[in-house]
Amino acid sequence: MKYKTLFGKTVKNISSEIKTVSHKLLIKSGFIRESTAGRYFNLPLGMKVHNKVIDVIREQMNQAEAQEMITPVLHPIELWKETNRTVSVGFELTTLKDRRGTEFVLGGTAEEMFVEVVKQFNLSYRDLPFNLYQFSSKFRDELRVRGGLLRAREFTMKDAYSFDRDEKEFKKTYEKMKETYTKIFRLLGLETVIVEADNGYIGGEYCHEFQVLSDTGEDLLFYVKSLNKYFNREIAPSQAQKVASKDEIIKEKKDVLGEKIIGVEDLAKYLNIPVEKTTKTLLFEGSDNRLIAAAVRGGYDIDETKLRRIAKTSFLKLASADTIKELTGAEVGFLGPLNLPKKVEVFYDESTDSRMNFECGANKTDYHTINVNWDRDLPKPTKFYDIKVTKEGDIYPETGEKYEVFRGIEVGNIFQLGYHYSKLMNATFRDEDGTEKLYYMGCYGIGIGRAIATIVEKHHDDKGIIWPENSAPFKVELVLLNTEDENVTKVADNLYQKLRDSNVEVLFDDRADVSAGEKLKDADLLGIPYRVVVSKKTVAENKVEYKKRDEDKAILISEAEFIKKIS
Amino acid sequence: MKYKTLFGKTVKNISSEIKTVSHKLLIKSGFIRESTAGRYFNLPLGMKVHNKVIDVIREQMNQAEAQEMITPVLHPIELWKETNRTVSVGFELTTLKDRRGTEFVLGGTAEEMFVEVVKQFNLSYRDLPFNLYQFSSKFRDELRVRGGLLRAREFTMKDAYSFDRDEKEFKKTYEKMKETYTKIFRLLGLETVIVEADNGYIGGEYCHEFQVLSDTGEDLLFYVKSLNKYFNREIAPSQAQKVASKDEIIKEKKDVLGEKIIGVEDLAKYLNIPVEKTTKTLLFEGSDNRLIAAAVRGGYDIDETKLRRIAKTSFLKLASADTIKELTGAEVGFLGPLNLPKKVEVFYDESTDSRMNFECGANKTDYHTINVNWDRDLPKPTKFYDIKVTKEGDIYPETGEKYEVFRGIEVGNIFQLGYHYSKLMNATFRDEDGTEKLYYMGCYGIGIGRAIATIVEKHHDDKGIIWPENSAPFKVELVLLNTEDENVTKVADNLYQKLRDSNVEVLFDDRADVSAGEKLKDADLLGIPYRVVVSKKTVAENKVEYKKRDEDKAILISEAEFIKKIS
Repeated sequence: MKYKTLFGKTVKNISSEIKTVSHKLLIKSGFIRESTAGRYFNLPLGMKVHNKVIDVIREQMNQAEAQEMITPVLHPIELWKETNRTVSVGFELTTLKDRRGTEFVLGGTAEEMFVEVVKQFNLSYRDLPFNLYQFSSKFRDELRVRGGLLRAREFTMKDAYSFDRDEKEFKKTYEKMKETYTKIFRLLGLETVIVEADNGYIGGEYCHEFQVLSDTGEDLLFYVKSLNKYFNREIAPSQAQKVASKDEIIKEKKDVLGEKIIGVEDLAKYLNIPVEKTTKTLLFEGSDNRLIAAAVRGGYDIDETKLRRIAKTSFLKLASADTIKELTGAEVGFLGPLNLPKKVEVFYDESTDSRMNFECGANKTDYHTINVNWDRDLPKPTKFYDIKVTKEGDIYPETGEKYEVFRGIEVGNIFQLGYHYSKLMNATFRDEDGTEKLYYMGCYGIGIGRAIATIVEKHHDDKGIIWPENSAPFKVELVLLNTEDENVTKVADNLYQKLRDSNVEVLFDDRADVSAGEKLKDADLLGIPYRVVVSKKTVAENKVEYKKRDEDKAILISEAEFIKKIS
Repeated sequence: MKYKTLFGKTVKNISSEIKTVSHKLLIKSGFIRESTAGRYFNLPLGMKVHNKVIDVIREQMNQAEAQEMITPVLHPIELWKETNRTVSVGFELTTLKDRRGTEFVLGGTAEEMFVEVVKQFNLSYRDLPFNLYQFSSKFRDELRVRGGLLRAREFTMKDAYSFDRDEKEFKKTYEKMKETYTKIFRLLGLETVIVEADNGYIGGEYCHEFQVLSDTGEDLLFYVKSLNKYFNREIAPSQAQKVASKDEIIKEKKDVLGEKIIGVEDLAKYLNIPVEKTTKTLLFEGSDNRLIAAAVRGGYDIDETKLRRIAKTSFLKLASADTIKELTGAEVGFLGPLNLPKKVEVFYDESTDSRMNFECGANKTDYHTINVNWDRDLPKPTKFYDIKVTKEGDIYPETGEKYEVFRGIEVGNIFQLGYHYSKLMNATFRDEDGTEKLYYMGCYGIGIGRAIATIVEKHHDDKGIIWPENSAPFKVELVLLNTEDENVTKVADNLYQKLRDSNVEVLFDDRADVSAGEKLKDADLLGIPYRVVVSKKTVAENKVEYKKRDEDKAILISEAEFIKKIS
């Protein structure tokens, strides 16, 4: 196609608020454009990339014997109620009513819809296993969006749902999808690592993310080298480095006035003790009217997901200042495990162990207790837990080694769902023995826009994008300089026609009103893998100027050599 | 792929409420399944057809130099307010609010979105013309749905929007799209006629529909043979056949009691006059508090679209019984043009002309006036209009010939938009002379699901679907009979592998638990163009049994001959 008539050319000035590299490059080069925050137009160049990425995914999914289909975008809300997800997904969910008053959910994922359609067929073990996927618009009403296509509110997702006879069969499917995903991302120019992660509101018992290591990544990944195993921060088991010194003498416990001190750093400085000797205690309300206190050592935060699981409560809500005052008599900020009423269950993080002479809130407004010691002042709990947010420097408990920490972009995820949905929705098949059995399920997602942004994050230089061939909008960019010269123009036109005739996807920049420098700059920005320039100079030598986008040097070669190189 | 593991096999019993042939066949054969009314799952077979149809359209649109892109599904409502379409589209529009309170429209068409993204670029005449298209989910909250994919509430549509420098350039684009559409439908196995139609809420001055003649069609098409021209009923100019007899004697006008008579047929019988001598008069409220009466001769209905245009009112609303009583003193049902207050404007359809001794409502409860005659009783208007719903038997006024009438399914439409949207949204480009000019626009739609349903309407027999090759889910169905015979199975397996290796799309029915009869019946229902059977019998003769779906006779040929036939 001719760049002249392409809609969505390069843009010189873009908003200074756009910080992420991929966001910047995709806007500047005319691949995407923002509609409302978190919702994007794919311009013709972006659309070509989008379709290429879809082609790669579709081919690999089909090779893995998954079957493409599609569900409506509007899901009847009754289905989401069956699985309690109108509550658990919360505000990310968008709902609407049609003019007959029927309520729908704008699909963010589609577990319910796939289970529903499977239920409409009277299937037996002979029809199993199968894995169904779709490419469709997904909607997540994210509170904050960031980085252009990296986290959007509306995006195309490939989501797949597998239906197996039992766990054993499912495991084969799961492994097959692991391999398929690795291959898909490799074909797209993305090396991924497989990361154990939290399953969020999806359900099921375990899941894995496909992460591309990148400093732009939102996710913190904790790597156990000896096991070659990655954990997403949300679920990385954490053991704090020990801080106790054996030579330390047990000091006298006392309450110290510490008015208006906020934060453990300031407190440690004020008390002249290491941060590690301070203690952070928070009070939560849990299910069944439980009061749950959690304590971590200074420098850590409490991980509510971990705490919720350990405390076995279906929810956790930070207690209000009023509740704390009623309970302890003190204002918020001075809570500590000493002398708490019996009805409060206290969970101690393992980081609070192996300390002597430590600090706690005194449960008295403006006061802190220092030189607290286990057993003497506070009964040492029979069990310490891991309820803290894992951080750099932490140890993987099983092997005792320090984590390596990376940033990553999650480009895909796979979930074991087990019987979660089939049970809630009563979805069964007739097994060989004639009984009805629940499907054993999994689901598998890839966000197309995020994959594209990640490709750009990994493949660019300071001049622009460098598309890997499989996702490039065109294979070749043909640049004509000296448009005023009829003969040169004719040579370029002929080459353009020849490339098109051989089904080479080519973008032809024959603009008459644009300087050579600008055309070459635009070509670098667009990042099409192969560039070929036709100019007075090249025609005089009966050559073309050839350059790969990821190489520095352009070379003069014959047209025949050029055709060979790109074939 | 193997039919055994295909999700969405044939269905024996379907709801008796499903009447339309395409709806029935697509459900029975396992191509689609209903989610909620008017919203469908495309099952794997249906998805293959869907993707094939998209491929055909995409290729032709690209050949016509249109550029694919995509807009978000959620359109900011502000854009629709700019073009007054939140009002004019009315209840077919679905709106929603996100959790920040921002209001969106679920896109049914996307004129505003395309104009908006074009405005974001600072374009000049050099960038023109361009034609942008997308395939995306569209939402129309139809009051009634019918015929499965023929009229759905959620469906994939290819919509295109062209931007031209002026009307002259636009006309080229419009003609190109006319040709492209004709070609697309022909490739899909659909012969279309081009029909002048109403532009509905889209805007612009004229538009054309691509209609497939079919008795299942919702649309009535009026054909002028001498001009080879079709009109959609909504806009077909209509001239009623004359009914006056020159020998008739003018009779005495009188009021006749006609209690509880409803409808012109009963009235004509009661009065012992032909239906054509009765008159139907309706009262409307229009813009600027206008009162508008419209009269057509019995047997016709008033076409509000025509009346609205002729009366030059932005809306028309049937007056209430109270308004009529206040105006005439009579109950509703006895309205007539005699003695109406001056403030009522009366529009007469041309069908009311050329009559003598006709009937009108007497504007008196339960009374009709008979033997009314122009001039003697009622001043003959200086102008009669065409404000009736055109019906079979009517005459095309320009040539005086009787229309031929057909039923049609609208599979595509093209609209001249002119400056309608660019003016309302102030969308301009810099012209050669340096001034800013409005874009001259057009838009072009094809509903994918409706195209698929129409293909089935046109290509089926009493055994099932007969897919044209371009839209078939697979090219070949390979049916293995005698699965108990290892050798026969091996032959079929080999043939399956051979076909796959040569990239022939093949569906392989090697089910072990299904009778030969059922397999062949299923094959007919699915409608894959080429069927090849491998059985004990064929293997014994070293042949395969070959049959085209649209031919009656199966023939025994060698595998080599078969391969040649399908290549």
